[in-house]
Amino acid sequence: MNNFTYRNPTKILFGKGQIENLATEIPANSKVLMLYGGGSIKKNGIYEQVKTALADFTVLEFGGIPANPEYSVLLDALKIIKEEKIDYLLAVGGGSVIDGTKFLSAAALHEGETPWNILTDKKPITKGLPFATVLTLPATGSEMNSGSVITRAETQEKLAFGGPGMFPVFSILDPEVIKSIPQRQLANGIADAFTHVMEQYMTYPIGALLQDRFAESIMQTLVEVAPAIMKDPTDYQAASNFMWSCTMALNGLIQQGVPGDWAVHMMGHELTAMYGIDHARTLAILAGNHYRYNFETKKEKLAQYAERVWNVTEGSLEDKANAGIEKTDEFFKSLGIDIKLSDYTKDYEGTGSNVAKRFTERGWEGLGEHKSLKPSDAQKIIEMSY
Amino acid sequence: MNNFTYRNPTKILFGKGQIENLATEIPANSKVLMLYGGGSIKKNGIYEQVKTALADFTVLEFGGIPANPEYSVLLDALKIIKEEKIDYLLAVGGGSVIDGTKFLSAAALHEGETPWNILTDKKPITKGLPFATVLTLPATGSEMNSGSVITRAETQEKLAFGGPGMFPVFSILDPEVIKSIPQRQLANGIADAFTHVMEQYMTYPIGALLQDRFAESIMQTLVEVAPAIMKDPTDYQAASNFMWSCTMALNGLIQQGVPGDWAVHMMGHELTAMYGIDHARTLAILAGNHYRYNFETKKEKLAQYAERVWNVTEGSLEDKANAGIEKTDEFFKSLGIDIKLSDYTKDYEGTGSNVAKRFTERGWEGLGEHKSLKPSDAQKIIEMSY
Repeated sequence: MNNFTYRNPTKILFGKGQIENLATEIPANSKVLMLYGGGSIKKNGIYEQVKTALADFTVLEFGGIPANPEYSVLLDALKIIKEEKIDYLLAVGGGSVIDGTKFLSAAALHEGETPWNILTDKKPITKGLPFATVLTLPATGSEMNSGSVITRAETQEKLAFGGPGMFPVFSILDPEVIKSIPQRQLANGIADAFTHVMEQYMTYPIGALLQDRFAESIMQTLVEVAPAIMKDPTDYQAASNFMWSCTMALNGLIQQGVPGDWAVHMMGHELTAMYGIDHARTLAILAGNHYRYNFETKKEKLAQYAERVWNVTEGSLEDKANAGIEKTDEFFKSLGIDIKLSDYTKDYEGTGSNVAKRFTERGWEGLGEHKSLKPSDAQKIIEMSY
Repeated sequence: MNNFTYRNPTKILFGKGQIENLATEIPANSKVLMLYGGGSIKKNGIYEQVKTALADFTVLEFGGIPANPEYSVLLDALKIIKEEKIDYLLAVGGGSVIDGTKFLSAAALHEGETPWNILTDKKPITKGLPFATVLTLPATGSEMNSGSVITRAETQEKLAFGGPGMFPVFSILDPEVIKSIPQRQLANGIADAFTHVMEQYMTYPIGALLQDRFAESIMQTLVEVAPAIMKDPTDYQAASNFMWSCTMALNGLIQQGVPGDWAVHMMGHELTAMYGIDHARTLAILAGNHYRYNFETKKEKLAQYAERVWNVTEGSLEDKANAGIEKTDEFFKSLGIDIKLSDYTKDYEGTGSNVAKRFTERGWEGLGEHKSLKPSDAQKIIEMSY
């Protein structure tokens, strides 16, 4: 096990009816900016619940944060925060709204030339305007971590930032929101959370036995509840386990003391940028082939995963490892997710070399847990995924 | 799954050489009181490492905190804190030293008539003098939770307190300390952490699938590393997994959304009070029989535990549940821990009725996850354990 430093101060209020507690969690007399996305919260009742809970507060609103939180849109919100002297931000939404709110939290207190520097400086953000979240779409874990990804259409950039000042003060997780989420987004959420775990787990073995078992626990739980969630999102037991699993998948706990891979995400971001494919679906397209391509360095963990998550008991280590990859592909397909690039676009020829070129032009340092994968390796993995 | 509220702000610095970071974690110019126990830290090098790391700080010392942290001893430390205007406490030790330090943290800012009220008021403690820990004995989880148990010899009381102000600011977990821990204490630490998990897990099923799997993960890891730890405590991989498992066993994570039992602890405390038996060993004496006595309400979970932690695949649900109990007894015995009260005292006759009497006199409300066990039930469980 590697050395690690871990701290996660976010308070979680989990369960039915927790939105009511907003008024006691946000300091009295706060001037609140409520941030949300495309307006689904006005259809599923969450908007009303939040407004009712905050009846005694001054609440301004900023809706329309898009699925990949866009810098220019966020600058409009920043203007309101400064002009109206907002002192508390409340994200009501999924990962994009929360990530956008993290950016605004940092930008409100940013002293540099332009808030874009938050994304380019590569410095951990240690302070921000206090913010909280009401999670409406389980998937990204952003409700209990300190990371964020922001998109800037103007320059075709998608950059990450974060730091100890970027944890939500509190997050409300009410699994009852899940019943109003469309099937497509439920499938994406399951696949996204599952892949988050894989990125932190499917590396070379490092003897972090408990972290391995926790990672396997999250994957087992997602596998167990996925059919119930997809069949009946009003199933509260399935919904609550799905929601808590998504949070635990990327709140920092399982990554302590272990290497991370994240190559699937790095390649997947490019497919989203090029073809607009849903983030989670790009992961499903690439994951299996990433493991096939890097079989030798990952086969011990792949076999352990096959045994423990999928109950594969027969065959050699290599047989089990291969079975683990097949099971992963099948799992994504069971969610109704296509796992070939050609299922999403007819113009897939040349995607591998185009992504490799984009990586090369950015002066790429290498992908994967050893940072050893070159752009040419990414090209081959993507070509395997046509 | 039940609703829950969860927050754990303690920063963990885990791994080799982390003690060096004390100087950067404690605010400059702090006046520090370093608290420890019987002096083992002067033999194993930890004392020197801490003093070296804090060379630039004003550090006073208070040693001699006993195994069950004693109120009258802590009052002596409190006097020093007040007279010397100490502004930071550093516990260097195991659960007793840390629990004692939590009491001092609360007492230093306590405004009531007497600090004993901290223990009798039953009010959550929301503020305390900042304190941190250097853990030297993995077992209790006190390094990453907000609870504490204090003993008062004068009145033969052992009372618990805690609250959101009682989390350590940070805790240093260096698994290299484990090599200097005596076998008896290693066995106790493993048994204590294992039973902490059982108390939170072995209840009626409530559909908290991820919490169940996390609990099983901790138990599986403890079972896996126990032989290596007992054979060779210099085995860093085993030591690091043991240490992290003990912390995760009682830092609040696995108890979210689930009922707790804790009857084994409540009965065990009495055996420690009456016969001076090590805390962990009282748990080993009682756990198996507690599950035998409450078999009907716990058999589903016992069978799941047998299957997942001990790989029991044969037989009916009842067969598996019984096998799980047997495996638990065998596990304690494999650590060199005797599991009958008569192994510890010849004067065991009447213990059951004496404990029942003590419970009755205190106006007992009922033990276990349903609070349904009466003093007479405790008597029978203890009598099964002679």
